Amino acid sequence: MTEKIALTPKTHTVPPAKFSHGVKKGTILQVAGQVGFLPHEEGKPPTPAGPTLREQTLQALANVQAILEEGGATWDDVMMIRVYLTDVDHFAEMNEIYNAYFEEQNLTQPPAARTTVYVGLPPGLLIEIDALAVLG
Amino acid sequence: MTEKIALTPKTHTVPPAKFSHGVKKGTILQVAGQVGFLPHEEGKPPTPAGPTLREQTLQALANVQAILEEGGATWDDVMMIRVYLTDVDHFAEMNEIYNAYFEEQNLTQPPAARTTVYVGLPPGLLIEIDALAVLG
Amino acid sequence: MTEKIALTPKTHTVPPAKFSHGVKKGTILQVAGQVGFLPHEEGKPPTPAGPTLREQTLQALANVQAILEEGGATWDDVMMIRVYLTDVDHFAEMNEIYNAYFEEQNLTQPPAARTTVYVGLPPGLLIEIDALAVLG
Repeated sequence: MTEKIALTPKTHTVPPAKFSHGVKKGTILQVAGQVGFLPHEEGKPPTPAGPTLREQTLQALANVQAILEEGGATWDDVMMIRVYLTDVDHFAEMNEIYNAYFEEQNLTQPPAARTTVYVGLPPGLLIEIDALAVLG
Repeated sequence: MTEKIALTPKTHTVPPAKFSHGVKKGTILQVAGQVGFLPHEEGKPPTPAGPTLREQTLQALANVQAILEEGGATWDDVMMIRVYLTDVDHFAEMNEIYNAYFEEQNLTQPPAARTTVYVGLPPGLLIEIDALAVLG
Repeated sequence: MTEKIALTPKTHTVPPAKFSHGVKKGTILQVAGQVGFLPHEEGKPPTPAGPTLREQTLQALANVQAILEEGGATWDDVMMIRVYLTDVDHFAEMNEIYNAYFEEQNLTQPPAARTTVYVGLPPGLLIEIDALAVLG
């Protein structure tokens, strides 16, 4: 039987509940929904990188990346990115930040597919991102 | 060619439309969005397990589990659980119910990754859950 | 290493941003969120097929299908379809259109699992659809 491995980067808390920040089984790697929380500091509550869409988007992407790397994957392996925004008016700015971010990643494979929808999130959070990767 | 198998537990209706409650193909098993409807009774319309978040969450999880089992899978095989709530204020209570539920499942593998977002659902429904599993 | 292939049907623009309309890697094919935009015409902005749910649903399904076909897949390979609507009152009509559409596809395998939730979308758009397929 193929083992399912929990992915818990050093930047993340030990999951406070019965979920994993990411899991890998065989060639499939799934990253849980990441918001713009700064790297965990012992004894501190989860804290957003800042109030702006830019700060939270870049932090959420960094949080996804940390989980990918914990599983031996890179953005090149990512098939699907789901972006949850709270406000339709944030779409253009998110796209700009997203594009600039991925320009800098020097992908060697085509970028992931993506779906963006507008939902509710807990107060203060403007974006949540999850990702599905296929390795190998 | 690998066969795609429809998963239709005895607790569920024959799908009333052109979708499957779950499908399995090779090692991939996908569970459709499950709400808190009680096991189907011939001639009765779909009926929520109750008006509370607790009743609906536990029933939705049971409905997901029935489809997993129909496909020869268990919660241990689940990579991703998507939780759709209608109210941000339900998050803490859902987490509590979710954690207690999975404590009782005696998982032998790490728990699934998870994304929770807040959306609209048909009147009376407070939660919808779907799941992606990798078997073997 | 298995190559990740971008799927860009002739009906679609070259992606204007760092995402792919669809990607295929090994047996996994992921279609990005498709809305009811008509096939791209050089120099014209993205234009919905019409203001109605029927027009937009059929066009979004056609757009998903174009990406599947670009990757050598058919609806028979699709495991999961995610339907995002903006209005709970659209559910019955969407189901009717969806069922009639898939009746006409002459599937030889069980239909995909599905999750439908109600979210915000950019002004004028009533539906978004994405899909996960497993080939072979």
